[in-house]
Amino acid sequence: MNSGSTSQYQQNEAAWSRSEKAIAHKAFDAALERELQEVIREAKQKARQIKEPADLWDLEHYLTQRRKEIDRKYDYRYSQLDLVFGRLLREKWIAEEDLRGLAEDKLQAIRSYAKFFAGTDPA
Amino acid sequence: MNSGSTSQYQQNEAAWSRSEKAIAHKAFDAALERELQEVIREAKQKARQIKEPADLWDLEHYLTQRRKEIDRKYDYRYSQLDLVFGRLLREKWIAEEDLRGLAEDKLQAIRSYAKFFAGTDPA
Repeated sequence: MNSGSTSQYQQNEAAWSRSEKAIAHKAFDAALERELQEVIREAKQKARQIKEPADLWDLEHYLTQRRKEIDRKYDYRYSQLDLVFGRLLREKWIAEEDLRGLAEDKLQAIRSYAKFFAGTDPA
Repeated sequence: MNSGSTSQYQQNEAAWSRSEKAIAHKAFDAALERELQEVIREAKQKARQIKEPADLWDLEHYLTQRRKEIDRKYDYRYSQLDLVFGRLLREKWIAEEDLRGLAEDKLQAIRSYAKFFAGTDPA
């Protein structure tokens, strides 16, 4: 029935050249590693400051929230990558130079998403 | 319909004298405080030893498990107190001397539960 048609996934993936995929993978992995290292740093600091039982459950809540947020944010699907990189750019987990080598239309889409996320920041 | 009858709660509560309730409250609160201080100590140690992201989620899991276990265990209902103290005695969060002043039938029930929990310990 659908034989011969091109899936959405294939269309999205086809828009990324082999060298662009390599750049994207590297930028994505580096951002995730930076963000996780920041969570480690914060968790250690929060743990050092624990004085009473309520602080324990605050730490638990912090870890649960960060895990869920990171799970949602780091979505490596080619259909989502412009949005993901836009957010990571806005949050400074990547810099524009990490994306050097991507086609200009992708960079423009990513910058648009970065602007969008800037608009949604809490005042 | 039930007017004039004595509720299960009232029956259970009536079995504890005022001075026994004071002893029970003090022992219960002291055990909870000791156990929470132990969780704080362990959480701080685990946090210091975090090296990679998986260690973060291990700490989160540890805190969630401990919170749920403590919530379940510290059940201050007079119908449950013999069982609760039996477990706390077995786990050494209280000593027999913390319960001095309770009626002998209660101490016997508590010791029975302590033996029961000893039998359920992992080999």
